[in-house]
Amino acid sequence: MQQQISVITLGIADLSRSRRFYADGFGWKPVFENEEIIFYQMNGFVLGTWLTRALEADMQRTGLAAPAAFALAHNVAARDDVQATLDHLSRFGGRLLRAADAPPHGGLRGYVTDPDDHAWEIAWNPAWSISPEGLVTFGI
Amino acid sequence: MQQQISVITLGIADLSRSRRFYADGFGWKPVFENEEIIFYQMNGFVLGTWLTRALEADMQRTGLAAPAAFALAHNVAARDDVQATLDHLSRFGGRLLRAADAPPHGGLRGYVTDPDDHAWEIAWNPAWSISPEGLVTFGI
Repeated sequence: MQQQISVITLGIADLSRSRRFYADGFGWKPVFENEEIIFYQMNGFVLGTWLTRALEADMQRTGLAAPAAFALAHNVAARDDVQATLDHLSRFGGRLLRAADAPPHGGLRGYVTDPDDHAWEIAWNPAWSISPEGLVTFGI
Repeated sequence: MQQQISVITLGIADLSRSRRFYADGFGWKPVFENEEIIFYQMNGFVLGTWLTRALEADMQRTGLAAPAAFALAHNVAARDDVQATLDHLSRFGGRLLRAADAPPHGGLRGYVTDPDDHAWEIAWNPAWSISPEGLVTFGI
């Protein structure tokens, strides 16, 4: 099968609270929004933020819990951008989980949650390339 | 900030059990693997499957719970591929959550979990374009 993920959907409780984090904090532009979902066109796939009750109904599964065993990452271009981005997102409804420090594999990273407790790693990792269009390639 | 997600990291309990679902079930080729993590180069970003205890240590957060309020999606090229893919993944450690049927917005979709209870939507959505390289573009 094609090595492809089309959508990441995050369950959220409040559309405007989440929008503030993603659209105002990250500064990302929605490609579609209605009263229950906002889509963002990302680097080769789509990010959706959808009311959790609607996601539950679509998945036919209830009792979705947090914090969850997953994280999303956003890579930044410079070492100094890591803590600055964590601080910035904390002013838009984020909550700092881990301040920027160096992981064993090199670079620099920290973690912040979005307003729905989804974890975001903000990382500077010079071994990974990022194209001007935002396409990210693994490297060591 | 660049509209970019660099990594999706899924917490997993058992590396070989998870590898069977992703590498054998989906047929995706790892770009890197060691005793605690496997990375897959995806369409413009990287998928990581990492032992949950290591992810918890990295995030400095414990008590990660499931099922979680998020879903990943993989889009297929043809309507008939949806149920076939759900059935296929169920033979590699997946568990069917919702059989293929038509959502209100059109197309066809169903859900299957990976062995660590992460939800995957398998969808056919002709309004969204997918390039030969797997780059997915939102459409209505």
